[in-house]
Amino acid sequence: MLLDIAFTENVSARYEALGWHTIWVKNGNTGYDDIRAAIKEAKRVKDKPTLIKVTTTIGFGSPNKANTYSVHGSALGSKEVEATRSNLQWFHEPFHVPDEVKRHWSHHIDEGASLEAEWNAKFAEYEKKYHQEAAELKSIISGELPSRWDNALPTYTPESSPDATRNLSQQCLNSLAKVIPGFLGGSADLATSNMTLLKMFGDFQRDTPEERNIRFGVREHGMGAISNGIAVHSPGLIPYCATFFVFTDYMRAAIRLSALSESGVIFVMTHDSIGLGEDGPTHQPVEQLFSLRAMPNILMLRPADGNETSGAYKVAVLNRKRPSVIALSRQKLPQLKGTSVDSVSKGGYIISDNSSDNKPDLIVIGTGSELEIAEKAADELRKEGRTVRVVSLVCWELFEEQPEKYKESVLPSEVTSRISIEAGVTFGWEKYIGQKGKAIGIDSFGISAPAGKIFKELGLTVENVIAAAKAL
Amino acid sequence: MLLDIAFTENVSARYEALGWHTIWVKNGNTGYDDIRAAIKEAKRVKDKPTLIKVTTTIGFGSPNKANTYSVHGSALGSKEVEATRSNLQWFHEPFHVPDEVKRHWSHHIDEGASLEAEWNAKFAEYEKKYHQEAAELKSIISGELPSRWDNALPTYTPESSPDATRNLSQQCLNSLAKVIPGFLGGSADLATSNMTLLKMFGDFQRDTPEERNIRFGVREHGMGAISNGIAVHSPGLIPYCATFFVFTDYMRAAIRLSALSESGVIFVMTHDSIGLGEDGPTHQPVEQLFSLRAMPNILMLRPADGNETSGAYKVAVLNRKRPSVIALSRQKLPQLKGTSVDSVSKGGYIISDNSSDNKPDLIVIGTGSELEIAEKAADELRKEGRTVRVVSLVCWELFEEQPEKYKESVLPSEVTSRISIEAGVTFGWEKYIGQKGKAIGIDSFGISAPAGKIFKELGLTVENVIAAAKAL
Repeated sequence: MLLDIAFTENVSARYEALGWHTIWVKNGNTGYDDIRAAIKEAKRVKDKPTLIKVTTTIGFGSPNKANTYSVHGSALGSKEVEATRSNLQWFHEPFHVPDEVKRHWSHHIDEGASLEAEWNAKFAEYEKKYHQEAAELKSIISGELPSRWDNALPTYTPESSPDATRNLSQQCLNSLAKVIPGFLGGSADLATSNMTLLKMFGDFQRDTPEERNIRFGVREHGMGAISNGIAVHSPGLIPYCATFFVFTDYMRAAIRLSALSESGVIFVMTHDSIGLGEDGPTHQPVEQLFSLRAMPNILMLRPADGNETSGAYKVAVLNRKRPSVIALSRQKLPQLKGTSVDSVSKGGYIISDNSSDNKPDLIVIGTGSELEIAEKAADELRKEGRTVRVVSLVCWELFEEQPEKYKESVLPSEVTSRISIEAGVTFGWEKYIGQKGKAIGIDSFGISAPAGKIFKELGLTVENVIAAAKAL
Repeated sequence: MLLDIAFTENVSARYEALGWHTIWVKNGNTGYDDIRAAIKEAKRVKDKPTLIKVTTTIGFGSPNKANTYSVHGSALGSKEVEATRSNLQWFHEPFHVPDEVKRHWSHHIDEGASLEAEWNAKFAEYEKKYHQEAAELKSIISGELPSRWDNALPTYTPESSPDATRNLSQQCLNSLAKVIPGFLGGSADLATSNMTLLKMFGDFQRDTPEERNIRFGVREHGMGAISNGIAVHSPGLIPYCATFFVFTDYMRAAIRLSALSESGVIFVMTHDSIGLGEDGPTHQPVEQLFSLRAMPNILMLRPADGNETSGAYKVAVLNRKRPSVIALSRQKLPQLKGTSVDSVSKGGYIISDNSSDNKPDLIVIGTGSELEIAEKAADELRKEGRTVRVVSLVCWELFEEQPEKYKESVLPSEVTSRISIEAGVTFGWEKYIGQKGKAIGIDSFGISAPAGKIFKELGLTVENVIAAAKAL
């Protein structure tokens, strides 16, 4: 068989090894009874999923092109279409649906109507007995969020304890799961690192479908695909899925499909930079922020502290027509003074500024864990008498969607002394710092060491921001 | 078992379904004889690969932490290390290698020396009988390229026929395979679309290891991983692997590992834009150029015609310490006037310019299939009396590595009227066009239609470049 040069696996045996029931229909072109029997059998098997392998001939019916690869990539052409119709004894006009076929399908309309009526009656009864559960189901079907759901998200003051944003994220996840009935998800076998367990729920398994912690296993692509499926199932199902940020590379196609099909999946991506430390360059994302910022219809959020983490989740829950990727730190970060939950929805905003007009000497732009460095450097420069603004650019896509006037108020075009600091590639920052600005970042793969050492070694320091400011 | 919540597959059965021989060592912690026997058995099985499943206890020997997940992510701690040493009856100082162990391993040194001498004698004999084959093997081991190997690459004039760069790429692949003995590769089941078949060779299969067409099957990640393995095996093995450009998303982790481990793999990526037409947005890359430009230690090349395609391959073959991704068109492109094979190594260069000084009114920068549009628009604008320069930015990374003086000669900073045109997201182009420039591109997913229609619909047209020029 020609296929043998590239593919020799026994697909059914592989699925059986994965715990599936399998059925083989040997003649998928005309074996209608076998197909019907296979579907019936699959429905009977309740304890596992079923794979029906159906052997067919590609281009079946075409006298000259059946069983050739040319049928896959190009149209038959009118002559071969004619020959195929004649061969299959199909003499109707193109696009004509014969009465026989119409009748066969029409009875499904009545059947469907009766099934729907039956379900509605059942649900009405259920609603009487289980008022709260019925309301929850309705909200999952309709997608209507409970009123003031976002009050559940925690807020912080600078006096609140420093914490890793992955931990602050877990508080958001747990708070949201309490108030939103369709909020559920899990991690690709990293729940205790990603901090994604919903503490008041058990594991979603075959016998516990009412629980909400999904154990995806080490299969990032599958996790993304499953989450896409959950999101498109009902407007009120809000799935999140988690892994290390660098492993978005393993699920990029699933993230892209999420964006393309307008699914509001929340991708919880912890260990978001060299700040993860000892695991080294294979685990340290440096280019992932930009590779996702480049993707259409996606929100790439990188919160700096507790308020921004809550704000990121607020944005993510509200955006039901595009996925959100939330990048979170492994390492502890302080609660900053100028951050707020609601500012995140603007994508970028002023954290601090000691200029009285809208013309600071310098603008330092940061995201995530580097916003702290930006703030500290700004404070030093202010002590020396300079006016410095610090801007958090937590989500580029949302900032771009703001009115020009707002954007200009945050980043006035006449202030060309600009520095960006972000623990990732500098490529792309020209957009906001201009060709004269200075981007501080990491244009190589990371290194293995404790986080503090790496930040110093790679130059992501207060001193370097100050030096860059003086050089500008 | 705790693992059951996330993983229930029968791994051995799965590998058997994939055609492997499998062996199970049930006691991997102390069953030394079983391990030895398994390795012997695996060596005996010649007709397929062997998977040895070895069951072990994580943290074996640690009295308090064995069989817990905490052993995976954190160190035992000095107290538990002490307890473990005592439990295992290991009373040597840390890092001390007992004589018994030393003796056991030392005899392998003599054994290795004798095996090497044996091989050398055998090779000397072989070299006498098979002079050419021996020379080829030596060049594969050493990595030395044949002299003037690059003369094999075809060159073109504007009179040469228009052609898709995927076709021009196939000529390069075939020319290189003829002169470089270690040049080999294949496609992820798209050889007839990627145009990657080496016509003078057959398929590399179990019984034909002397052939050079590798049929990777529809497994992009595996293809990338295999190619990485080939590249690191010997300096003279130069593997290429191919699929549609959008499917780099499926193999991003393998491409990243290629970059991180400094493997000179050539990634041949055809159907590089909306220009692929009817297959639509799932198959149309728009963000892939930037998501790969963001990756460290990689060359992202997008040639515009035959000369640049040959130039891209020259660069790729010479860069043995970083991977090259070559993006190629499905659609026909004309052979342009100002392109050349050797200019590609500079990453960016002037294609045409009607200004007499180094100060054209406008610079239009393009890559790949859009360079033709840039040229046509420039011609129109020149007719109206403007001075216009067209720059091909075929490889950003190589351009960035040029001396400042050269870069300034191509893109003089005082010329701020700049337009970029590329069939992909505009994000990132600020680097070269500045904040005042105009980027023409596609900031959404693609659409399904014949290529020409999509280019028009999405505004990648000569008219739009002219309009943008007039607006600047």
